[in-house]
Amino acid sequence: MSDAAPIPRPTIAVSMGDPVGIGPEVIVKALADPALRRTARFVILGAADAMNEAAQLAGIEPYWWRVKRGAGLVDTTTVHDVVLLDDPEGAGITAGSLRAARREPAPAKNSGALSFRWVDEAISAAAGRHPEGLIADAIVTAPISKEAWAMAGHARWPGHTELLTERLGARRTRMMFFSPTLRVVLVSAHVPLMELRNILSIGRIFDTIELGAQGCRMVGIEAPRIAVCGLNPHAGESGLLGDEEQRIIAPAIRAAVEAGIDARGPFPGDTIFRAAVRVAYDLVVAMYHDQGLIPVKLLAFENAVNATIGLPTVRTSPDHGTAFDIAGRHRADPGSMRAALELAITMARR
Amino acid sequence: MSDAAPIPRPTIAVSMGDPVGIGPEVIVKALADPALRRTARFVILGAADAMNEAAQLAGIEPYWWRVKRGAGLVDTTTVHDVVLLDDPEGAGITAGSLRAARREPAPAKNSGALSFRWVDEAISAAAGRHPEGLIADAIVTAPISKEAWAMAGHARWPGHTELLTERLGARRTRMMFFSPTLRVVLVSAHVPLMELRNILSIGRIFDTIELGAQGCRMVGIEAPRIAVCGLNPHAGESGLLGDEEQRIIAPAIRAAVEAGIDARGPFPGDTIFRAAVRVAYDLVVAMYHDQGLIPVKLLAFENAVNATIGLPTVRTSPDHGTAFDIAGRHRADPGSMRAALELAITMARR
Repeated sequence: MSDAAPIPRPTIAVSMGDPVGIGPEVIVKALADPALRRTARFVILGAADAMNEAAQLAGIEPYWWRVKRGAGLVDTTTVHDVVLLDDPEGAGITAGSLRAARREPAPAKNSGALSFRWVDEAISAAAGRHPEGLIADAIVTAPISKEAWAMAGHARWPGHTELLTERLGARRTRMMFFSPTLRVVLVSAHVPLMELRNILSIGRIFDTIELGAQGCRMVGIEAPRIAVCGLNPHAGESGLLGDEEQRIIAPAIRAAVEAGIDARGPFPGDTIFRAAVRVAYDLVVAMYHDQGLIPVKLLAFENAVNATIGLPTVRTSPDHGTAFDIAGRHRADPGSMRAALELAITMARR
Repeated sequence: MSDAAPIPRPTIAVSMGDPVGIGPEVIVKALADPALRRTARFVILGAADAMNEAAQLAGIEPYWWRVKRGAGLVDTTTVHDVVLLDDPEGAGITAGSLRAARREPAPAKNSGALSFRWVDEAISAAAGRHPEGLIADAIVTAPISKEAWAMAGHARWPGHTELLTERLGARRTRMMFFSPTLRVVLVSAHVPLMELRNILSIGRIFDTIELGAQGCRMVGIEAPRIAVCGLNPHAGESGLLGDEEQRIIAPAIRAAVEAGIDARGPFPGDTIFRAAVRVAYDLVVAMYHDQGLIPVKLLAFENAVNATIGLPTVRTSPDHGTAFDIAGRHRADPGSMRAALELAITMARR
């Protein structure tokens, strides 16, 4: 990655997410800033109608080009403004039915089919195999509804990460969170807590440390200082409160150090995040979902970005869901989407 | 508890903790405020010499009476100032040897023997069976070293809570944390994380909710709004990511509601704490140590107080350890000790 020449103005494929959720709104609001728009080209895979509604509600003058299917997509990536690919008709769904769905936001088959298709297109663009020739240097995904995906027959992929990992043939990927004060990478994410005993291994933890270091380099931290959490209270207190620290975590840290990574620990989960925030560490490696995300969500508020590390392309996303409960009311905060776009640009440039 | 007449000026027994740690320093500094001293009577079980050293280092004029063993302790509880019980000679250890130990702070047998004895005396006072007639309305414990306790032959009790529970014949106790923005009670504390599957039960969670409600009433919140965490990512996502929420946690919440407690959940651990901080809830019930203490330590900084709920007496303690690394250097922050004293006074008055 560091061998490649920097891309001064990368093309970012933005999938709209569920068109009935807050995706359209946070995209419209985040990209309303012309300064942000100048830093990259943006191709939004989504429904023009949903963008228009969100813009009208927010009092934002539309600033994008609308491109119809088959209208020469290759050229659109060279224009200097936001491009919106005009669906849903392309997926056989009318704009009218979507507009009706947005009156009472909830997971539905049609919107699930669309949001799936848009992500899939973004992936094709990043992989250089988009049927209409669209090419992207990075992917930013607005939130989808897993329930809607299941309704549309895509239950096989519980979320973006699994689809990206499979489509792009990635061997190992990890969820990493970036915020102004804290970076966190997860050893495990969406697994039952008690299943950790079957999942945690020296190799899995080592891989996470290595991918976390790679994630740091993607934002310019060449020699990150990495803190690794323990699993048990007080990081096992020398074996009195659990042996995973000595049996699995410490050996993984030693292997990382031997591989030239500045990794330390295992540290007690309840105190290491404060130490990390005080700039002692560039990254915390958390063993499980809540251990890593409790601090991220407490500290980062609307500014956390989720990135998938280990893919052959850059992928970021805001750290919130479809928020059907506040969709269509001009109440969504675009902070996390904006941060996700900025992070994708930073990473794509390197 | 609400039947008892309020105690206008309660007597607080303060055990000094490890005399080689920061206990003496945070006690001296916290009680240096005359306004705090006027609100209660304080009986410090500890070494006068350690208090003197800490006061000298902090430039604080000694403000306490020193009471020798056998000098009529019953009367001392009526004086209007801090009383220090003059050890260590009472435990057969010279002040000189302790002073030498404080040059290089570390766990040691002598200091372990003393800190154990002081806690034991505080418990006797609270239970009304102190050999010299000392009586206390609440106990505040400065941090001890578990290692030092083990060196002194007290390995049987891993910490204060276990000793208090046994000595006071308590049936069920829980660790609860109080801070200006967040209250948390723990279903489980010092157990290996993967042991939770053998420990979590409907009864244990119900007991914790009930004790948490009791802890809230002890500070004047008569009808607390209580949020209960899930165990798994996204609180199990309707069973997709673990079944403890449906099998154990939800039934415990239902039982609590039937018992007249305003308990809700299970909520995802990674988002509920922010909701609680925004004053939606008076208390969060956390399933395990790090789930509850990551937010407490991130948000409360030096102001969190640990209380043991379920004892027949009030017991609070600062939310930090012996901190041997900074002991004897006038670097310890007395904020948590002050908050622990104030909380004990508030609780003892009711």
